Amino acid sequence: MLNSLTPERAAALRETLPQDRFSEADAGHLQEPRGRYHGTAGLLARPRSVDEVATLVRAAAAARVPVIPYGGGTGLVGGQLAPDGPLPLVLGLDRMTAIRDVFPEENVLVAEAGVILADVQAAASEAGRLFPLSTAAEGSARIGGVLSTNAGGTAVLRYGNARDLCLGIEAVLPSGDIYHGLSRLRKDNTGYDLRNLLIGAEGTLGIITAASLKLFAQPQQQGTALLQVTSPRAALSLLAMARDQVGESVTAFELINGQGFAFLAETMPQVRNPWEETPEWSVLIELGLSGGISAEAALEHLFETALEAGLVADGMIAQNEGQRADFWTIRESIPEANRRIGAISSHDMSLPLGVLADFIDEGRVRLATLGDFRINCFGHVGDGNLHYNVFPLPGKSRADYGNKKEQIYRVLHDLVHEMGGSVSAEHGIGRLKVDDLERYGDPAKLAAMRSIKGALDPLGIMNPGAVLRG
Amino acid sequence: MLNSLTPERAAALRETLPQDRFSEADAGHLQEPRGRYHGTAGLLARPRSVDEVATLVRAAAAARVPVIPYGGGTGLVGGQLAPDGPLPLVLGLDRMTAIRDVFPEENVLVAEAGVILADVQAAASEAGRLFPLSTAAEGSARIGGVLSTNAGGTAVLRYGNARDLCLGIEAVLPSGDIYHGLSRLRKDNTGYDLRNLLIGAEGTLGIITAASLKLFAQPQQQGTALLQVTSPRAALSLLAMARDQVGESVTAFELINGQGFAFLAETMPQVRNPWEETPEWSVLIELGLSGGISAEAALEHLFETALEAGLVADGMIAQNEGQRADFWTIRESIPEANRRIGAISSHDMSLPLGVLADFIDEGRVRLATLGDFRINCFGHVGDGNLHYNVFPLPGKSRADYGNKKEQIYRVLHDLVHEMGGSVSAEHGIGRLKVDDLERYGDPAKLAAMRSIKGALDPLGIMNPGAVLRG
Repeated sequence: MLNSLTPERAAALRETLPQDRFSEADAGHLQEPRGRYHGTAGLLARPRSVDEVATLVRAAAAARVPVIPYGGGTGLVGGQLAPDGPLPLVLGLDRMTAIRDVFPEENVLVAEAGVILADVQAAASEAGRLFPLSTAAEGSARIGGVLSTNAGGTAVLRYGNARDLCLGIEAVLPSGDIYHGLSRLRKDNTGYDLRNLLIGAEGTLGIITAASLKLFAQPQQQGTALLQVTSPRAALSLLAMARDQVGESVTAFELINGQGFAFLAETMPQVRNPWEETPEWSVLIELGLSGGISAEAALEHLFETALEAGLVADGMIAQNEGQRADFWTIRESIPEANRRIGAISSHDMSLPLGVLADFIDEGRVRLATLGDFRINCFGHVGDGNLHYNVFPLPGKSRADYGNKKEQIYRVLHDLVHEMGGSVSAEHGIGRLKVDDLERYGDPAKLAAMRSIKGALDPLGIMNPGAVLRG
Repeated sequence: MLNSLTPERAAALRETLPQDRFSEADAGHLQEPRGRYHGTAGLLARPRSVDEVATLVRAAAAARVPVIPYGGGTGLVGGQLAPDGPLPLVLGLDRMTAIRDVFPEENVLVAEAGVILADVQAAASEAGRLFPLSTAAEGSARIGGVLSTNAGGTAVLRYGNARDLCLGIEAVLPSGDIYHGLSRLRKDNTGYDLRNLLIGAEGTLGIITAASLKLFAQPQQQGTALLQVTSPRAALSLLAMARDQVGESVTAFELINGQGFAFLAETMPQVRNPWEETPEWSVLIELGLSGGISAEAALEHLFETALEAGLVADGMIAQNEGQRADFWTIRESIPEANRRIGAISSHDMSLPLGVLADFIDEGRVRLATLGDFRINCFGHVGDGNLHYNVFPLPGKSRADYGNKKEQIYRVLHDLVHEMGGSVSAEHGIGRLKVDDLERYGDPAKLAAMRSIKGALDPLGIMNPGAVLRG
């Protein structure tokens, strides 16, 4: 049984480190972006080093008090706060912001958990290198959270998700022991893959305090185009065609639905719609090439061959940085436009590429059995990752659909599961999808997860209630 | 305590499946390539399906009998046999050889554990795709073992090791439960990373029975060159230069020492040495390009700029497939030449790229304190992975250095560890390096590994004595 971090226990915990590490938890640490949960806390600690993190975890373990690790707070599934249960220690990583080392010749950068993702990108860029992970939250997300949730984003297609970009980690385990694993090695087959076990565990198996990250050469030629595709199926054929032409140089491949443009026009008219007539489906494609090929020429060739093949009907190739930025602004503003419209239900799902277009068709059919909605389906289609959001009809509000939300959720997630997909492609389980994991997860995997959790965190202090039921 | 698979217990185990699944273990299943260990067995089982594997594991668990999973038998660290302890069940995967599915448009192939690596490559090729993992043992290694040992090889630089090429696995856990995890998804953040925990666990946490593997577009233009580099340091600068010029299109970058050519001349004179005067250090570089650039032109440009920069002194660019094959034959024959010469001590190590050249220098200095040797240091230098082998002087034999072996081993491994490297880059721990893991491994990681092993395999039946002391 866990104990609440009562004022008496908090006072004892405050003895372990200098006073300026502690404060009452402020509102910022107790909310999450979509307002689904409100957090509770007995105390906020903001340690300055891995040793201080270890001290706090040992003290919390001794008192059997829950520990909630807190990075940038941008998670969308409630993994970063405790809405109920015994009052926890909230352990903020935002004072561990050192970039400990950059090895440009090795393509390695070592960052502490509290470094903001955009600052990792900037440090890589200063060293003439690329850290490719890019998400809408990159201005606030911190690298420890990015790894703990195995964040994805727009460059996964080429460079992989957070897991793939990490060579090693330093972490404090639930025992308070420090795992010193900041490897700069590309190959190391010495024992179980503890790094990947902690990555994506959402703080339930320990706290990542630093990471060695992979850097890449900066592409020499970048090109971006916005293409009207004739269907989602055509979008996937276009991706295959692009890869046949330029290999792994396709950096991003984002599907945009006409509904997204409509929402932008309604809520963010400053975002310019470059289409004269907005198509039902567009694709934002970006190439990053080396070796002196012109990205513009490659995109023109792709456009022509795709036009001939009937995959695209129209398109624009960015002629300068301004146009390129405009195209990306469209894609990156869609989540905010969605927020302003107010979804009944939002989903982060992935499908095998071969059935993704079928899912889009069938999802529409099944939703129609529940009522009339507006659907904005968009996202990282090259990874099979759709952000699928269901909205009220014009003039109606979420409240008018109050009893539909659960049904929509279940109908869509059942369909994803039937088709071999995942109900959490890149956001994680957090507290929001614990039921989904129990419902759709492989039983043997769930049993193994519970065994591992029990073995590494026998007291159950690390982020209880996230991922696995507490 | 584990029980020996006595004739009585073996008879009971034989009742669980049709008789043709069982036989006495033949000599082939009880030896390993370098002859360091000789295996023991109470029975050999060769199941035909994952359900049969599960039946066998459950029966072994009920009898508390060790299970030794056996793939292609090509492992170099003794992970595939039990040299001592209670007589085990040897569980051969060589009858599970179905390629269950190929999804060319998804770049996914699903293979059972017993499929030989070269057959996976061939099936991918038939589908117009590439499965890039390539090792000297690809004609015998089976995909289950390839994943269980997280095999590396010559294409890791561009495509990653076995772990990076696997989207999902099916496995029988020590409980006998089947983990159904053959995902075709590129993104799936639903729970702990059980896949990566089993990959590289060398059969100690369960038996991988099938895997969904990543395929790639076949490069349109391939080019290969053999370049004389002025030093290992220059080789790494050459790699950086190549990546600046052609990005991730560098498929292989293999360092070859003059000693390797000398051993080939001595033991395999049929392998042609294309150098008029053999340089101390050469590099075999391969590019795989898309987008219509000529690989030959890219290699010529690289050669010219590297010559100007003083990184290379001479070189040959393959003008046809025959020359390309000749260059690769040199690289691929070196391990066999080494075997014929007979090393005192062989090592599979990796170093951070920034200190790799220092390691080569310092290794030579430290070895000199122990005596005079011939050193053949070669390998996947772009990954920081050196195969470092120490040989008798000409006219001497291993026996003349009998008491040096342990000292050489310790001196080199201590140096690797001091410099932040790994004493097992791609071969794994097996039984050979259990002591090394205890000596050099991070204590918190070792404790976590033992906890995980205890949680998933409480009876300790799965490959006992491999990776962790039994």
